[in-house]
Amino acid sequence: MNRFLLTGALALFFLAGSAQDQDSLFIRRLADEILVNGKAYANLRVLTKTIGGRLSGSPQYYQAEAWGRKALEDAGADKVYMQECLVPHWTRGGRDTAWWTGGNPAAGAGGSPMDVLALGNSRGTGPGGIHAPVIMVHSFEELAQRSGEVKGKIVFYNYPFNPRFTETFRAYSDAVRYRVAGASSAARYGALAVLIRSMTASVDNNPHTGVMLYNDSFPQIPAAAMGMRDADKLAAALEKKQAVEIYLKTMGKMLPDTLAHNVIGEIRGEQYPDEIITVGGHLDSWDPAEGAQDDGAGCVHSIEVLRALKAIGYHPRHTIRIVLFANEENGLRGGKKYADEAKSRKEKHLFALESDAGGFTPRCFSFSLSDERLAGIRPWLRLLQPYGVYEFTRGGGGADVGPVGELGATVGELVPDSQRYFDYHHARNDVLENVNKRELELGAINMAALIYLVDKYGLK
Amino acid sequence: MNRFLLTGALALFFLAGSAQDQDSLFIRRLADEILVNGKAYANLRVLTKTIGGRLSGSPQYYQAEAWGRKALEDAGADKVYMQECLVPHWTRGGRDTAWWTGGNPAAGAGGSPMDVLALGNSRGTGPGGIHAPVIMVHSFEELAQRSGEVKGKIVFYNYPFNPRFTETFRAYSDAVRYRVAGASSAARYGALAVLIRSMTASVDNNPHTGVMLYNDSFPQIPAAAMGMRDADKLAAALEKKQAVEIYLKTMGKMLPDTLAHNVIGEIRGEQYPDEIITVGGHLDSWDPAEGAQDDGAGCVHSIEVLRALKAIGYHPRHTIRIVLFANEENGLRGGKKYADEAKSRKEKHLFALESDAGGFTPRCFSFSLSDERLAGIRPWLRLLQPYGVYEFTRGGGGADVGPVGELGATVGELVPDSQRYFDYHHARNDVLENVNKRELELGAINMAALIYLVDKYGLK
Repeated sequence: MNRFLLTGALALFFLAGSAQDQDSLFIRRLADEILVNGKAYANLRVLTKTIGGRLSGSPQYYQAEAWGRKALEDAGADKVYMQECLVPHWTRGGRDTAWWTGGNPAAGAGGSPMDVLALGNSRGTGPGGIHAPVIMVHSFEELAQRSGEVKGKIVFYNYPFNPRFTETFRAYSDAVRYRVAGASSAARYGALAVLIRSMTASVDNNPHTGVMLYNDSFPQIPAAAMGMRDADKLAAALEKKQAVEIYLKTMGKMLPDTLAHNVIGEIRGEQYPDEIITVGGHLDSWDPAEGAQDDGAGCVHSIEVLRALKAIGYHPRHTIRIVLFANEENGLRGGKKYADEAKSRKEKHLFALESDAGGFTPRCFSFSLSDERLAGIRPWLRLLQPYGVYEFTRGGGGADVGPVGELGATVGELVPDSQRYFDYHHARNDVLENVNKRELELGAINMAALIYLVDKYGLK
Repeated sequence: MNRFLLTGALALFFLAGSAQDQDSLFIRRLADEILVNGKAYANLRVLTKTIGGRLSGSPQYYQAEAWGRKALEDAGADKVYMQECLVPHWTRGGRDTAWWTGGNPAAGAGGSPMDVLALGNSRGTGPGGIHAPVIMVHSFEELAQRSGEVKGKIVFYNYPFNPRFTETFRAYSDAVRYRVAGASSAARYGALAVLIRSMTASVDNNPHTGVMLYNDSFPQIPAAAMGMRDADKLAAALEKKQAVEIYLKTMGKMLPDTLAHNVIGEIRGEQYPDEIITVGGHLDSWDPAEGAQDDGAGCVHSIEVLRALKAIGYHPRHTIRIVLFANEENGLRGGKKYADEAKSRKEKHLFALESDAGGFTPRCFSFSLSDERLAGIRPWLRLLQPYGVYEFTRGGGGADVGPVGELGATVGELVPDSQRYFDYHHARNDVLENVNKRELELGAINMAALIYLVDKYGLK
């Protein structure tokens, strides 16, 4: 709670009781439609179990485009179309392998296997792999201090995912620089490869991949993420000053850019067909899993918003446009293309809502609104609270709606409970079984209700 | 939100800023202790993985008592003791078996197997099992209307777990009468056994057991729960008017009452040692699983409250008493015994807080307080909201603190998000793997913070 709550609570008294009652009944109908006849989970099952991981440029990505097109048609979109864009095309190239030994040649290749996943965009080691001593650092500062020890070694970044942040996205924001920039930072001092402690508070050993970027000034060295248990084991050995050597083999390769598409479905607005409300998630996902929470959930949330509004016979004032964005994970080309098209067509964008924080139980929406305008819409919380959202905060939308936000649209994002997100994020266990059907549906209910309110009352 | 929010928000202005700041800092220390050094998850691992299911009277229950005693000692309790009580002793007696055939003898025993679990307290079929035609009803009303068709049959109660309730406990309250009273209601009309559609919205096929009660006026017939998929399959066959016969074998048996114990640990109050704040969960759990969410979570939550307060050096004004209650599941004898002892010793109970709704991300506390008194403590929500609790509601405590509440204590209950609870409740998948470490810790943080606030400010 904060100082604006009072304003919001007071504002409630000035809202006509009857309008709130009508809205409450309408949202109850939306909720019943989604809880009783919902298609979000069934759609997600098809996406995850018949297609699975769908990285940009992979055959699965194109299957996912066809899935999205059909799901939007089945949901009742007035119009479904594709928006072409160029996307990066990285492939893992094979199974990532690593093990470590205590520097004892007799232990050889039969040392301690480690569960690793090459980072997205990273260059592989080549088929022979890399075998080198390892140096552990806990921060870029320590790396710089010990830069003289790095040459010819594999750098192990053992930066913790800070458990003190109750919002796990903050721990992620804090730690992710080691994944994104760790390779070039170590290559600068002559490292041969890097290993990153995964960005997770999970109790399991799954490594978590994700995008990395090379700084062109330094050699492009291989980079991989390690699971928590292996990272702890390795760290314990190194803390005991054991000599540790690691063998790492990754096969990643960046191919030429290729074509992909945003998949778009619309319900045409009756009063203001040229004013657009966008709702979206991203269709691409990392290859080792099914992309169920990241971001299959956001895709089926968005499709369900359209389906439920249509199913209960709602005729929106503005055009409601569902966008399944291409290439969020390693390029954001879909989000940029969407904004480029909006700009060149001089489209008027009222609001763009993203769901890219998973299909967990909803708690909040964030908006790119001033404190004053946010206070103005807080009375809506009374309508959403029965379904789980009790707070509006200032913040951006997600990554995909960022570019259209820069053109002037208000952007927003569904903020579900974040505790489990980084247990699955970019890891092998991001599968349908780790999505709860009812939590997923509650997300869709709150999104549909918000879109209804924005369509009816605007964001003034 | 509701009409009391304004009162709460206004009240904030009258609270000394410095007191709130001190409390906020203290709660941050509690949270850091639990997030960084927490033992709740590690304790739960031992309870679930080395002991597992621990129904009253089972050998595992006594192992769990020893576990609880040690966990409370390790947490730093000033005093740990046991409170003896008589508990019912039901045993499953073996593996429950069922299958159904289309009434075609050629299909014989090789028909369609069904996943069933006998209900707790139910009498078994005997080693030969029961083989009989089945009649499906959707309610007690339909059963009464069709009472003439019931004799010699197995009654299948296909009452849905209503998805429209956003709080799943309401769907449970609505449906649970078929589990509790279904057998005697059908026996009244000559049924041989009953099968119950499990009380869950889960997408899997796990049957969910739980307590049932016989009405002494009618024969004690066997009763079992079925998984959702089997229930849907069976219902589809019956709706097509297929003749269906079911073979059911269960081995349940009620043995004589036996002794068990509430396990109790205390920190003695410095100012008011004779005034007691109770925090508890129940130690017993159904036999087919590990009792991780129900209610291992509540036990380790409660122990963690004591551990964390002690670890950061807090000296409570009142005596804080952690109680691991015996026999919540099929008798509530532990809760009753606790209140009986309190009464006979003329103890003064200020507050009793229960955690028996799982270790999911926390949202709310409910209290047995008037609207006015509830409004008086709503300013505390500002202190809890960073950790997930944003609402106080009127309601009871849980089952175990009910009896001490009847003696005049204010009772309360942690209300975590309820969406996943009935996926696991009394089913085989109520295991450690379905508890998220951080969600569990957030529950403990909010409970510890609330106990601190009640100890410091009371509930006047």
